[in-house]
Amino acid sequence: MASTTGQTIKCKAAVAWEAGKPLVIEEVEVAPPQAMEVRVKILFTSLCHTDVYFWEAKGQTPVFPRILGHEAAGIVESVGEGVTDLQPGDHVLPVFTGECKECDHCKSEESNMCSLLRIDPDRGVMIGDGKARFSINGKPIYHFLGTSTFSEYTVVHVGCLAKINPLAPLETVCVLSCGISTGFGATVNVAKPKKGSSVAVFGLGAVGLAAAEGARVSGASRIIGVDLNSDRFEQAKKFGVTEFVNPKDYDRPVQEVIAEMTGGGVDRSVECTGNINAMISAFECVHDGWGVAVLVGVPHKDDVFKTSPVNFLCERTLKGTFYGNYKPRSDIPGVVEKYMNKEMELEKFITHEVPFSEINKAFDLMLRGEGLRCLIRMEH
Amino acid sequence: MASTTGQTIKCKAAVAWEAGKPLVIEEVEVAPPQAMEVRVKILFTSLCHTDVYFWEAKGQTPVFPRILGHEAAGIVESVGEGVTDLQPGDHVLPVFTGECKECDHCKSEESNMCSLLRIDPDRGVMIGDGKARFSINGKPIYHFLGTSTFSEYTVVHVGCLAKINPLAPLETVCVLSCGISTGFGATVNVAKPKKGSSVAVFGLGAVGLAAAEGARVSGASRIIGVDLNSDRFEQAKKFGVTEFVNPKDYDRPVQEVIAEMTGGGVDRSVECTGNINAMISAFECVHDGWGVAVLVGVPHKDDVFKTSPVNFLCERTLKGTFYGNYKPRSDIPGVVEKYMNKEMELEKFITHEVPFSEINKAFDLMLRGEGLRCLIRMEH
Repeated sequence: MASTTGQTIKCKAAVAWEAGKPLVIEEVEVAPPQAMEVRVKILFTSLCHTDVYFWEAKGQTPVFPRILGHEAAGIVESVGEGVTDLQPGDHVLPVFTGECKECDHCKSEESNMCSLLRIDPDRGVMIGDGKARFSINGKPIYHFLGTSTFSEYTVVHVGCLAKINPLAPLETVCVLSCGISTGFGATVNVAKPKKGSSVAVFGLGAVGLAAAEGARVSGASRIIGVDLNSDRFEQAKKFGVTEFVNPKDYDRPVQEVIAEMTGGGVDRSVECTGNINAMISAFECVHDGWGVAVLVGVPHKDDVFKTSPVNFLCERTLKGTFYGNYKPRSDIPGVVEKYMNKEMELEKFITHEVPFSEINKAFDLMLRGEGLRCLIRMEH
Repeated sequence: MASTTGQTIKCKAAVAWEAGKPLVIEEVEVAPPQAMEVRVKILFTSLCHTDVYFWEAKGQTPVFPRILGHEAAGIVESVGEGVTDLQPGDHVLPVFTGECKECDHCKSEESNMCSLLRIDPDRGVMIGDGKARFSINGKPIYHFLGTSTFSEYTVVHVGCLAKINPLAPLETVCVLSCGISTGFGATVNVAKPKKGSSVAVFGLGAVGLAAAEGARVSGASRIIGVDLNSDRFEQAKKFGVTEFVNPKDYDRPVQEVIAEMTGGGVDRSVECTGNINAMISAFECVHDGWGVAVLVGVPHKDDVFKTSPVNFLCERTLKGTFYGNYKPRSDIPGVVEKYMNKEMELEKFITHEVPFSEINKAFDLMLRGEGLRCLIRMEH
């Protein structure tokens, strides 16, 4: 066990003091892990839209001061009481949703929506005792998504940690902790395109390109990228996208354009924007008889999905997915192996890198829509 | 070959001369089958809601005079040019949708929506030459759904005939020709409930009870019947329904009632009413993480399906089905075998019987909502 076991650790963390204000690197105290908790030394983290969304906190419950961050890779520093699956030195990916292995969802082969550890963005404390493990001068600093990876050390419930191959490069596989698994899994676990089939991907950000990567790996012969920004097509080609449609270029619904391009519709579609109209288009652009559309993007809370029921009766299927239907502990180690076996590519998702001290630059890049993933390298 | 081969046959048929008026038994002339057509001697037919729907022709294109009927069993009398799969004497079930075995849908493992022979209720003629095979004094009498089984003899495209085991009792298996396969297949082919699971069935008419029979056969442990008519529960018990919910008995949405009864929702639901609100309830009553809802009922053409997209994102699936996803020629013979092997029950669906001369009594029964299937026995 590390010499810090059982002791509070002082380390650097990027604290969001207020909604929308630049993060401030502060010295924080990180309490030891309690029962079923693990303290993790974070080595790499990256920025995801969800961090920005809750940092801006527009229409969200504001929970500040808070340590954001949920896409990361690290090494176990110490474990709390009752933790038997992990030990100091283990390489882990923290995940924003968990797997208790005991609830109905964890016991179901089909679900990954753990009742105990399901994502809860409003919660700023540990579920064990309702307290924060972070503090500055005795005042609590709140957690985010149970992960708070914008800190050199963080405390995470054991159910939210995937133990991975220690040979895997943490600076690369850290992106599997959220967005890339979400998009890739949506295709390979839920849409399941057959070899030679056609797939439309709505939204060519990191999640959408991961969905395209899933289609490429599945052997899809046509991967149609749909985005309002035509500049994204060039980059998308690296992810297997073969054709591009910008809905702005047409005066008719994009689902009609896609149906014409494909003789009636694509075999599969994956929606990664969260825009309600894109969701409807993604559903209506799949072929009757066998088409499957998968929703990934998170909508506004008052959005309503509307379509003619006849679109379903013509044997179309609509499914939603959460974290690519992966169970964090059971499945993510296998996704890391897929990368290690060169069955999927990850490097191409990481377009930028900054040291931890310059974390606000990662926010600037995302706000400008530049690049896919910005890796944030911790400076222990 | 029968002595009538190649000749026009004079026989009795029940002709719908006008929308909503009682059928009239007339002597009609039935021309010989042309290329890819088969003339079938009908022995048993039964009445389905769809016959009544197009007989009433409210909001439908009126196609009269017409010979209705599409749920039946018979024996091949003669075959037209190019027909190699069937010969005189073969036992067949005519089906309102076909299987050409050559289009993309027929070649797909997932679809049964044949491009060539897909249901087309507005068509009153054969697809080969655009003409009717029925006539009275040289004036055409139109076909219905490519089957027109309310006639002692009818002409059907070979792609719309399932060749079945000659030992199967035609007076029983005739109900597999439409409604019972539709409901049963929706459950066993599309919803696919696991043993021990919970299934909600919306609408306890013949199709809904066939869906329940599919759930019973699949080993579902809870089958919740939903209907606005509480009198239907008693009968539904014979089809495996274990619990009953009448939405009128509650002042909150039935999906909430079902979620409470089942700790979060049923594993599967099958909607067999065609009412848009029932469709929405059927979707929203399935459990998050793994629930699958299947739409069977045919909606009004201006209906809009509306739900929060979050209901999908919590890993619910919505699918539609058509004729239980069965391919008529490839799959229906196997369903007949299932009945022959006592893996499913059919007799309980046939609650009434009339001779052909009293066919209008079958319409009266259906209009009064009495019984499930009324068998109409031809009187050759």
